[in-house]
Amino acid sequence: MIKVGIVGYGNLGRGVEANLKLANDMELVGIFSRRDPASLDTQAPAYYYDDLDQFTDKIDVLILCGGSRTDIPKQGPELAQKFNTVDAYDNHSNMSHYYQDMQAATQAGNKLAIIATGWDPGLFSLNRLMGAAILPQGNTYTFWGKGLSQGHGDAVRGVDGVADAVQYTIPNQDLMADIREGKEVAYDSHSAHKREVYAVLADGADPDQVREAIVTMPDYFQGYETTVHFISAEELKANHQGLPHGGHVIRSGQTSPEAHQVYEFSLDLASNPEFTAAVNVAYARAAARLAKEGVTGVQTVFDVAPKYLSSRPIAELIADLL
Amino acid sequence: MIKVGIVGYGNLGRGVEANLKLANDMELVGIFSRRDPASLDTQAPAYYYDDLDQFTDKIDVLILCGGSRTDIPKQGPELAQKFNTVDAYDNHSNMSHYYQDMQAATQAGNKLAIIATGWDPGLFSLNRLMGAAILPQGNTYTFWGKGLSQGHGDAVRGVDGVADAVQYTIPNQDLMADIREGKEVAYDSHSAHKREVYAVLADGADPDQVREAIVTMPDYFQGYETTVHFISAEELKANHQGLPHGGHVIRSGQTSPEAHQVYEFSLDLASNPEFTAAVNVAYARAAARLAKEGVTGVQTVFDVAPKYLSSRPIAELIADLL
Repeated sequence: MIKVGIVGYGNLGRGVEANLKLANDMELVGIFSRRDPASLDTQAPAYYYDDLDQFTDKIDVLILCGGSRTDIPKQGPELAQKFNTVDAYDNHSNMSHYYQDMQAATQAGNKLAIIATGWDPGLFSLNRLMGAAILPQGNTYTFWGKGLSQGHGDAVRGVDGVADAVQYTIPNQDLMADIREGKEVAYDSHSAHKREVYAVLADGADPDQVREAIVTMPDYFQGYETTVHFISAEELKANHQGLPHGGHVIRSGQTSPEAHQVYEFSLDLASNPEFTAAVNVAYARAAARLAKEGVTGVQTVFDVAPKYLSSRPIAELIADLL
Repeated sequence: MIKVGIVGYGNLGRGVEANLKLANDMELVGIFSRRDPASLDTQAPAYYYDDLDQFTDKIDVLILCGGSRTDIPKQGPELAQKFNTVDAYDNHSNMSHYYQDMQAATQAGNKLAIIATGWDPGLFSLNRLMGAAILPQGNTYTFWGKGLSQGHGDAVRGVDGVADAVQYTIPNQDLMADIREGKEVAYDSHSAHKREVYAVLADGADPDQVREAIVTMPDYFQGYETTVHFISAEELKANHQGLPHGGHVIRSGQTSPEAHQVYEFSLDLASNPEFTAAVNVAYARAAARLAKEGVTGVQTVFDVAPKYLSSRPIAELIADLL
C-alpha cells in the first residue's frame, strides 16, 4: 500500500480524501492542517501541520492541497526536503520560479516532487504538448467552461449593490465548431468565452447601475459578452452551490495541404476540486512508484510515463487497454 | 537531426514521408520497399528492403509501415535486432505475442522498439489508461467514426451484384450524449455504431436483393442499423475517395456519489493514414531520444513520457505549455 498524507483540508483536501477511498493500492495516513485537528470534519486521523516532522518515515507521498497564492510556494519547498510531494500549483506566470525552488528542495533531501498536476495545469498541458508534437503544423485552442470562476465571482461580490453572486465562464460553441471544421478564426480569450453572472441585489440597489458596473469592469468583464441575471438569495442557494467546471483543448492541424486533422481533449466536471484531487491522487501513485525506483528531483505531467498512473501491472494494461 | 528510414510505401509510408517534412529535427534517409525502388512515386532516396543491412549505422530509427496481418509480425522481429523501430501494429488479439517477439529481438541487438503507436491502438489506448487511472469508479466507452472501414468495404465489395462500394462506421450520437450526461446505458458495439454503405450496383443487379445480402451479413452487418445507398460509379469516385476516420474515448465516472465527471478524447481525421503516420513520427522522435539515453527493449505508448514526443526543450515546455 502507498502511504499518503494530505496537507490542507479545504475543498481540494476533502476531494483527495474522497478519491483515496477509491484507490485500492493507497491508504491515507493522516490529514495535516494549521487548524486544530479536532475541528476538522473528518473520520480520518488528523494532525497539526507542525507534527509532520514525526511522519517522515511513515508517509510515501504528501499531497499538498493548500492555495497556490501563498500556501504552496512556502509549503512546497519546505516539505519537499523531507517528503516526496505532489501538488496542483497553478500560477502559470510563476511556474519556472516555483520549479527552481522545488528543484533545490528535492535535491537537498533526495526526494521527488511532481508539480502542477490537476487539469489546467495538468491534463490540459499534457494535451497541448501532445497535440502540438503530433500536428506541428497547426494551432492549439483552449476553451474553459461551462464552469464556475472563483476569481470572477469574488470580483462581482465586491461591486456596490451586490449582496451575493456567482460567475460562470461559458465557451463560445460557434467558435469551437468553426475550429473543428478547420476554418480560419479570430481566437482570443474575449471571443472564446462568454460570462454569465447570477447576482443577488442588496436592499435598495439599482439593477441597471449594478449591471453597468459589472459589465464594464476592466480585466474581468470589459470586452466580454456578459449576461447578468438578478435572482433571489434563495435561488442562488438552491441552484448555484456546485463547483462545476471543464473545458476543451483543441489542436487543429494539417498533415498535408488537403488533410485537416482535429485532436481534442475535453472535460465536463460536476466538481472541479474533486476531479483535480482525482488527478493528484493518480500522480501521487506515480510519485511513490518513481521514488521507489530511485527517481529524485522535480517532475511534471510532461515527465511521467502514463503507466505509473495506473495501479495495474503493465502486462495487464497491454493485454486489456492497448 | 534524427535520421529516419521508412519501411513500406503504401498509404502509411507516404503519410510518414509527408509528416517528416513538418518535423524540423528529423530527416528521411530512405524509403525501403520490396518493390523496385525506381517504381516508387517519390522524390526521396528509395532502396530495396534487402539493402537495409547497409544502413545500420546511418539510421537512428526505422518506421515500419507494412500491414499488421503479415508484414509487421515478420519484419518487426527481423529489423528490431539491428535498428530501433516504431510501428503501428494494430492486431489487438495478438498484441502480447508480438510484444514477446519484439522483446526477444530488441534484447538480441540492444535496440529499442516502440510498438503499436498510432491512434487505436495508440492515443486511444493512452486515454483509456489515463481515464481509468484518474476515475477508477466509472466506465470507459470507445466510439469509432465517422470513418471509412476498409474491412467492411471489402466485405460489401464481395457481395454478388455489387460493382464497387465503401462503408462508413457512424458513432451513435444519442448514446454518446446519454453517456456524457451520466445516464445508465446499454453499450455494446452494435448499439454504439451505425453502418452506412454507398454501393454501385453491377449491371442487372436487383437492389432489394443486394441490400438484403448486405444488411444480413453475419459479423459485419447483422445486428447493426445499416443504411445502404445505391449511387453511380461517378458519384462514388467524386465523393468517396477520402480516408476519413476518428472517434471518441469517453471515461464517465464518479469521484463521490454526487459528482459525475466526464473525461473525453476525440479525433476527427480527414486522413486516417496521415494522422497515424503523424503519431508514428512523434514516437519515432521519442524512440531516437530514448535510445540515445541508453534505453533498450520494447515500449508502448504507456511507457513513453510525453516530453519525448516534442522537439522542444523541457524548460520551454514548462514555460509555454504547463
